[in-house]
Amino acid sequence: MLSIWAPDGIGEITAGDDLARIVTDAVGPDLEDGDILLITSKIVSKAEGRRILAADREQAITDETVRVVASREHPNGVTRIVENRLGLVMAAAGVDSSNTDEGTVLLLPVDPDASARALRSAVRSTIGLRVGIVITDTVGRPWREGQTDIAIGAAGIRVVDDLRGQTDASGRPLTVTITAVADELAGAADLVKGKASGRPVAVVRGLAHLVTDEDGPGARALVRSAEKDMFRLGSDEAYAAGFTAGAGQSL
Amino acid sequence: MLSIWAPDGIGEITAGDDLARIVTDAVGPDLEDGDILLITSKIVSKAEGRRILAADREQAITDETVRVVASREHPNGVTRIVENRLGLVMAAAGVDSSNTDEGTVLLLPVDPDASARALRSAVRSTIGLRVGIVITDTVGRPWREGQTDIAIGAAGIRVVDDLRGQTDASGRPLTVTITAVADELAGAADLVKGKASGRPVAVVRGLAHLVTDEDGPGARALVRSAEKDMFRLGSDEAYAAGFTAGAGQSL
Repeated sequence: MLSIWAPDGIGEITAGDDLARIVTDAVGPDLEDGDILLITSKIVSKAEGRRILAADREQAITDETVRVVASREHPNGVTRIVENRLGLVMAAAGVDSSNTDEGTVLLLPVDPDASARALRSAVRSTIGLRVGIVITDTVGRPWREGQTDIAIGAAGIRVVDDLRGQTDASGRPLTVTITAVADELAGAADLVKGKASGRPVAVVRGLAHLVTDEDGPGARALVRSAEKDMFRLGSDEAYAAGFTAGAGQSL
Repeated sequence: MLSIWAPDGIGEITAGDDLARIVTDAVGPDLEDGDILLITSKIVSKAEGRRILAADREQAITDETVRVVASREHPNGVTRIVENRLGLVMAAAGVDSSNTDEGTVLLLPVDPDASARALRSAVRSTIGLRVGIVITDTVGRPWREGQTDIAIGAAGIRVVDDLRGQTDASGRPLTVTITAVADELAGAADLVKGKASGRPVAVVRGLAHLVTDEDGPGARALVRSAEKDMFRLGSDEAYAAGFTAGAGQSL
């Protein structure tokens, strides 16, 4: 039996706030060893002072971008899908400009895995519990409508469940071999956190076998490198690059 | 508070089995109005007799394919990512050849949304409860390591949560506007079903607001059409098409 809930009582977060204390206070004495805390990256960014003045949102996106994956013009401007400095492929590089004060944007945490490790360490040292931490953000996906939450930072949790070599209930080898459990957890937490609720933290209980003694590799392990990716570039962008190369070739 | 569990007692499913009865028997008298049942597509396919003789697995994949999206050779053969007749972009078109008898493959249900509607109707007529049904399958994703479960069939459930026009807790418009809740539910259910456990069904309780009186549009509404998709073709495939066109253009 798995239980997930999102505690009330986490107010507006500002730079310098002690997020570990705020979160554990909100969860209250219910928190148990082996629980997993899922925390919306927005409040981690705010606590870490990642709100910056940016007259030009587009420049902020460019600054966070390592590589443009695809872009598309629409009546209100250009949507840029990019790989950001964390290796994450996201619209607008993960720069959030909607829920911030006029003239500011909110960047992702500098290192969400490090943020998760710090939160885990703080929870362990203050209340003595071993918990898993996942920092989540919301992304679009190729081929599917709608957005889902994924893990962009993690500590003390197996981010993948590697079933290679295991068999199913009938003893036959499993085809599906590596499950991205941290992403599935992030999506599950989103079902109770919601976007409009003012509840940016969820607690998952019942998956203590995923919680580890060590901090582990973090959510970075869920990032597939561009070289390994069959969709490292948008279809139009790849076609255009091929067209240019083909035209040059035949001169 | 959201609860998810995967009942024991669902044995091997064969063609013609009354899946609604088997599932409700396994869940037992605990089932409540507003619960959501998440069912692994494999057992739906088996009950519907979708196991076929196929000496040639590759031919079975070709038969299920509408459009090749990307392919890559590797030491054991070729991985084909294709759009199948359901509009789903999946490796091997969703054809499952590992957990079936030698010389057979398991195809996806003919119409998973129709399967979900039939299961919902059967649950309603036999035990009088209004439940949501989601049929799940496991897929890989661009840009991310590991696989997750998604919704490939649904009935009686809001597959997306459309937040357009809503505001956050501080009254500011939400940027993230459409959440793919059925996919998040599928992933959440996978956390308790697992792949190796012999528990192919999960029950989600606590999201009755997502359960609808009508069957609704089904999981088909989560499929983004190729025309709208910036990643409708693999990067190498799009580059090659562009190269050919560019070379022809300049002759």
